[in-house]
Amino acid sequence: MKNDHIPPDWAFEFHGHRCPFMPIGYRMGRLAIEFLKVEREKDHRFFVFPEIGEGHPQTCMVDGVQAATGATYGKVLMEKTFYGKLAAIFYHPDKGAVRYSLTPDFIDTMGKFEFFAYRKKGVEPSRIPTPVAEEVINWVYAQTDDFMFKIEAKPDFKFTPVKGSFNKEKCHICGEYVFERYVRTKDGMPVCIPCSGYKR
Amino acid sequence: MKNDHIPPDWAFEFHGHRCPFMPIGYRMGRLAIEFLKVEREKDHRFFVFPEIGEGHPQTCMVDGVQAATGATYGKVLMEKTFYGKLAAIFYHPDKGAVRYSLTPDFIDTMGKFEFFAYRKKGVEPSRIPTPVAEEVINWVYAQTDDFMFKIEAKPDFKFTPVKGSFNKEKCHICGEYVFERYVRTKDGMPVCIPCSGYKR
Repeated sequence: MKNDHIPPDWAFEFHGHRCPFMPIGYRMGRLAIEFLKVEREKDHRFFVFPEIGEGHPQTCMVDGVQAATGATYGKVLMEKTFYGKLAAIFYHPDKGAVRYSLTPDFIDTMGKFEFFAYRKKGVEPSRIPTPVAEEVINWVYAQTDDFMFKIEAKPDFKFTPVKGSFNKEKCHICGEYVFERYVRTKDGMPVCIPCSGYKR
Repeated sequence: MKNDHIPPDWAFEFHGHRCPFMPIGYRMGRLAIEFLKVEREKDHRFFVFPEIGEGHPQTCMVDGVQAATGATYGKVLMEKTFYGKLAAIFYHPDKGAVRYSLTPDFIDTMGKFEFFAYRKKGVEPSRIPTPVAEEVINWVYAQTDDFMFKIEAKPDFKFTPVKGSFNKEKCHICGEYVFERYVRTKDGMPVCIPCSGYKR
């Protein structure tokens, strides 16, 4: 077995179904944190910018990246770039950045598995016969890192998260709390964006 | 114990630290799928629009929502609205939509716990003494749903995900695959957004 980075069962449970892309993202994320010599992020100091978008397949990769790195969407450590590419930049303020992408050869070879014939017919992953899903997952596990990933150090990559604030106000219209970055003013009163009628 | 919706251990492992907000989001997500009479989403048919933004605390809620609902960021089922509010809209195409928000009373009462004094001093959640974190987590577990959440049915809410496509092309410049929604044209050739120099 060439692959030491098989997702734990909980990562499949989090994701909701068994497909090859969550494990691919898990492996990418683990390799990236090893490359940058960081631990899985417990708090708020490691950032991932997946280059996927919407309206295309194989985005499931990004749930594997969340599981592997701890750079989760909820902790505001992950933001898609909407480039429609199977790649991600990983960044730690003290360690720099690296980009991992899937090689076209790997994507082409994997695309021949029966799993993708089902997907193209519109069959949802949880409805694909188990042996068909496991076949491609196990094939992915057996591939080398070199065949799967292109790795690019990104010494010039910079990212500064916005400065946080605990301040908040109650919207004068709905009465709900709004954190101050998002408080707007209407008729001289503090309001939330939806009550303001402003677009942002 | 008033709360049947305590996160499994794997949800804490996914999240990376023990804080009260991941469990709050988990409970919100579980209540929302019960309200809408849907199961945890295995595939791609349930959508969540968290109203949080960036640069404010308590966003961790959203990792609990991912864990509870299966509407994950990687499956393109979750998108923040950037309103800076501790709320989310939950939507299933066959079942409609509901909005859950945290009540100001709950937010104010919780804010008095020592955990938040540490957070305001800049101490990261994983560095806060365990008894201090467990105190507020256990207090949250003991609160009633009514005290914590405002619930609003949203019968007029509509959302249509973009139509997906498996089509992709190789960027003429970098040679990487791009899904067709994101292919751009430059000097008559198909290119990816970063190689195009276009903003989007």
